[in-house]
Amino acid sequence: MLTNKRTISVEFGECDPSGIVYNPNYFIWFDLSVHALLASAGLSLKTLIAEFDIDGIPVVDYRCKFLGPARWSDELLIETGVTALHRCAFDIHHRILNRGAMVVDCAETRVCTAIDPQQVAPRRSRCPTN
Amino acid sequence: MLTNKRTISVEFGECDPSGIVYNPNYFIWFDLSVHALLASAGLSLKTLIAEFDIDGIPVVDYRCKFLGPARWSDELLIETGVTALHRCAFDIHHRILNRGAMVVDCAETRVCTAIDPQQVAPRRSRCPTN
Amino acid sequence: MLTNKRTISVEFGECDPSGIVYNPNYFIWFDLSVHALLASAGLSLKTLIAEFDIDGIPVVDYRCKFLGPARWSDELLIETGVTALHRCAFDIHHRILNRGAMVVDCAETRVCTAIDPQQVAPRRSRCPTN
Amino acid sequence: MLTNKRTISVEFGECDPSGIVYNPNYFIWFDLSVHALLASAGLSLKTLIAEFDIDGIPVVDYRCKFLGPARWSDELLIETGVTALHRCAFDIHHRILNRGAMVVDCAETRVCTAIDPQQVAPRRSRCPTN
Repeated sequence: MLTNKRTISVEFGECDPSGIVYNPNYFIWFDLSVHALLASAGLSLKTLIAEFDIDGIPVVDYRCKFLGPARWSDELLIETGVTALHRCAFDIHHRILNRGAMVVDCAETRVCTAIDPQQVAPRRSRCPTN
Repeated sequence: MLTNKRTISVEFGECDPSGIVYNPNYFIWFDLSVHALLASAGLSLKTLIAEFDIDGIPVVDYRCKFLGPARWSDELLIETGVTALHRCAFDIHHRILNRGAMVVDCAETRVCTAIDPQQVAPRRSRCPTN
Repeated sequence: MLTNKRTISVEFGECDPSGIVYNPNYFIWFDLSVHALLASAGLSLKTLIAEFDIDGIPVVDYRCKFLGPARWSDELLIETGVTALHRCAFDIHHRILNRGAMVVDCAETRVCTAIDPQQVAPRRSRCPTN
Repeated sequence: MLTNKRTISVEFGECDPSGIVYNPNYFIWFDLSVHALLASAGLSLKTLIAEFDIDGIPVVDYRCKFLGPARWSDELLIETGVTALHRCAFDIHHRILNRGAMVVDCAETRVCTAIDPQQVAPRRSRCPTN
């Protein structure tokens, strides 16, 4: 299935006073990796929005384990792949490796959504293959 | 068990071009809520670090469901509670409500850690009750 | 002129490995303070967008001096005021105090803008008082 | 003098509901560019900290003009250079180009600092060449 790999260097400003990556940054990296994965398949979110009348691909579920730390200036390898395609949703798996050891193991599920015209109800999922 | 509630107003800069909260911000809010919860019990991280020779309380596990959106200027209620205490770890549960409806349901587990003196091995968990 | 004051507690995750506030966070706080200032005058950005056909109030100029540090758990007072109103722009001044001493002194200028229909040219400033 | 260039693609999550870059992200990019510039000269902050007994190189002054917008998926060129070296400080200039047009023009001054042993007084500047 569709996969991609990205290498990132942990920056000073991405770490907290303990000297390790401030946790929410992982979720920024996951998001960047999903966008990069889609783009590598010619499916950028901009294209999806323009062609399929969706407004986003929000995460509905994260199951994320942090197995070890990453510190300022560590070089991390992020491996991201699609693990399942559903009618209006897809499953993604991320593995982050630090010096060859897996430090983060994260599964996420995203759905395609369209904004409700009244903007008040929860957004409905919308299937881009319709 | 120990619980606290915080109300936050979703800010312009916390939202993405879809107009909803950019996902990693939830994990910043979870972190703030955990710190506030500990502080409300007289257990600020600064105190824990000073008294128990730990260097942090990193998350080792998130199981997070996003059930509905939150948009710019929405008022959110974040309810955070300790659900279990282990020897060197604790479980936390967050519920985020938007206009009375639960939009985020997140469980996390944190451990107390001490930095390995060599700074190369994964950090060992350290129990502050030792 | 219009002013407001906000107190914030510096959070763990807002600090870098040096233990001081990671610099870009100040610009998030400036933005929050400008929005709070406008809201206190009944001029939320949402209202401005809806009533005056603008799409934002971007900063065009920052002149910012950092005079001292702010550290994790410091209580900061942010004083924000409008210092000048122009036809389609306004000047803002922020002072951040830590234990009574000014640690940040920042002037900014914002303009009201409308998106160019072609989305390619630079955005034109648009005066909400037209 | 020392210069470097970096190209970045504006990500979805770096933009706000207006569809343009959320302003504080520029200051993250400036910081990354300064670190990259130093690293390209063999002067990583880690090296500076270890060899010269400093704890950081905080910004003391920004003079930043935003001349045009950058939007989601724009490719930006960030040119960063040292413009002056002082005894314990240095001046940096950043230019950000979007499709060949300068959209951000920023000068900053940084100092080398050492933490005051009492941790209460403002940090003193410390010259790494001493």
